[in-house]
Amino acid sequence: MSDSLSWTLIAQARERIAGRVHQTPVLTSCALDELCGAQLFFKCEPLQKCGAFKARGATNAVFALGDEAARSGVVTHSSGNHAAALARAARLRGIPAYIVMPDNTPRAKRAAVARYGAEITYCEASLPARERAARALIERTGAVLVHPYDDLLVMAGQGTAAVELLEQVPQLDCLICPVGGGGLISGTAVAARARAPGVRVFGAEPLGADDAARSLHSGELQGMPQPKTVADGLRGALAPRTFAEIQRGVEDILTVTEEEIVTAMRELWEVLKLIVEPSGAVPYAALRASPAPLRGRRVGVILSGGNLDLDALPWMAASA
Amino acid sequence: MSDSLSWTLIAQARERIAGRVHQTPVLTSCALDELCGAQLFFKCEPLQKCGAFKARGATNAVFALGDEAARSGVVTHSSGNHAAALARAARLRGIPAYIVMPDNTPRAKRAAVARYGAEITYCEASLPARERAARALIERTGAVLVHPYDDLLVMAGQGTAAVELLEQVPQLDCLICPVGGGGLISGTAVAARARAPGVRVFGAEPLGADDAARSLHSGELQGMPQPKTVADGLRGALAPRTFAEIQRGVEDILTVTEEEIVTAMRELWEVLKLIVEPSGAVPYAALRASPAPLRGRRVGVILSGGNLDLDALPWMAASA
Repeated sequence: MSDSLSWTLIAQARERIAGRVHQTPVLTSCALDELCGAQLFFKCEPLQKCGAFKARGATNAVFALGDEAARSGVVTHSSGNHAAALARAARLRGIPAYIVMPDNTPRAKRAAVARYGAEITYCEASLPARERAARALIERTGAVLVHPYDDLLVMAGQGTAAVELLEQVPQLDCLICPVGGGGLISGTAVAARARAPGVRVFGAEPLGADDAARSLHSGELQGMPQPKTVADGLRGALAPRTFAEIQRGVEDILTVTEEEIVTAMRELWEVLKLIVEPSGAVPYAALRASPAPLRGRRVGVILSGGNLDLDALPWMAASA
Repeated sequence: MSDSLSWTLIAQARERIAGRVHQTPVLTSCALDELCGAQLFFKCEPLQKCGAFKARGATNAVFALGDEAARSGVVTHSSGNHAAALARAARLRGIPAYIVMPDNTPRAKRAAVARYGAEITYCEASLPARERAARALIERTGAVLVHPYDDLLVMAGQGTAAVELLEQVPQLDCLICPVGGGGLISGTAVAARARAPGVRVFGAEPLGADDAARSLHSGELQGMPQPKTVADGLRGALAPRTFAEIQRGVEDILTVTEEEIVTAMRELWEVLKLIVEPSGAVPYAALRASPAPLRGRRVGVILSGGNLDLDALPWMAASA
């Protein structure tokens, strides 16, 4: 297996996960189109199994394992959505799941993982701490690591969202999705190149976790030691592999402020009537500024997920 | 035109509003099915134009008017969703809309009406005050009253939600919807009788606005002088005409407490990822108690709308 993501891997992922995850619907809104000066097609991954696109990659990785390798189970570290997705996929396959979670993970995301019967280990909210705890679990159990994004099978699964969207909405000009560790945008870029070569792919990222934008603009992989953003799903840092896919297939990474994220999320709730988590609102937040390359275009927007703590909505904090 | 709702009126409504309102999707959730001990099919009217089923009835009434009658515009009094729907339908047809709203109407619902360019008159939050203000407007403008529920064309339009649901999900055993003034349940009952005669129709209502339950159980139309419920869309009282339809075609009206409404609404948000307003959560609140006639059944649940003030969520008030 080569170290870069291929269309073949995405096509295989699509077959493998069919019937195990949803084909999610696409919503549109004249009101939001007017606000952004573009024609937006929202791919609704909050309506995906486990409430996020992560079900795609995790299900692909778990069901691609040989029986022998699968028997000892799977392990991962994740801010939550990948964890719940992996726990669910493991339960579907009947194998154990071991999950390392940062101790600042929102309550709703913890509950989702527990619901699927996974064993949870809490750790400090830093990438090194997460990786350390995962290694310890692997040594103890012999389980297979399914990294939340630095994994070709996971990246391939995430690419199936864009494949569906390109089929559901003909003649898109652009696709935009959020960027955390880069799994979703890698899959999106490779899917677009294979299925709709004229479509330009954009990423969107919080300014407080802007490693992808800085990396793409500087041409060198930049770290993100202390991400600070309400978009808890986007605190991960790019891996060399996802950075390579971004360099190959992504036009630009747009950044947004925390205030823009909260305003955008609220607008999506009010108008689309869909619960979108802060991370999921980031691409729409970028579109609200009507950026030149997207203005007037037919834009596919991947709303990545809808899991969050309803007792701690960001506009409640702001007004308190 | 007879004084009772016919299948013909609903069939005509469906043709008249096609292309002017959405055919809304149906969502399912294994998790919610388990909680209720039934198989639930959620008809997602929060995704309807204006965020509520009210777009159906208002659009039907406005487009059924002759050109001569339409010219002076339309008027109504409404807690909000019907008002926005009427304002939108009038704008689509290019005629004026005059709206009387109780002064405790949630901010989001006021904004929706204003967005469509209707003229708003505020009044005290009581049915007599609303009717008085509407009469004054009619005298001044010559506009046609489109009552929020005591109107055959409105009732017929609301019935199209059930028609779609019965086509989208074969072999339902039951339908359940919220009951305010009774427009939606009247349309639902007549649609079910015509299209799927074996399907039993239930209503659900807050205990704090339980005029429909008391009326059905006593066999006489009961008033509801001081409704008290978080479900602001269900504060209206039955009209003789909607009561007659309920007596003819509704199996039972179930009631729920305020706490049950808030819990149900929150669960729908967390699991379905759909913004459902308190009124819309009332049928699901009733289903959570796994009532005997619905237990184990295939139940179509009409989630009526998704408009509410995100600054005043009911669980925020409870915790403050």
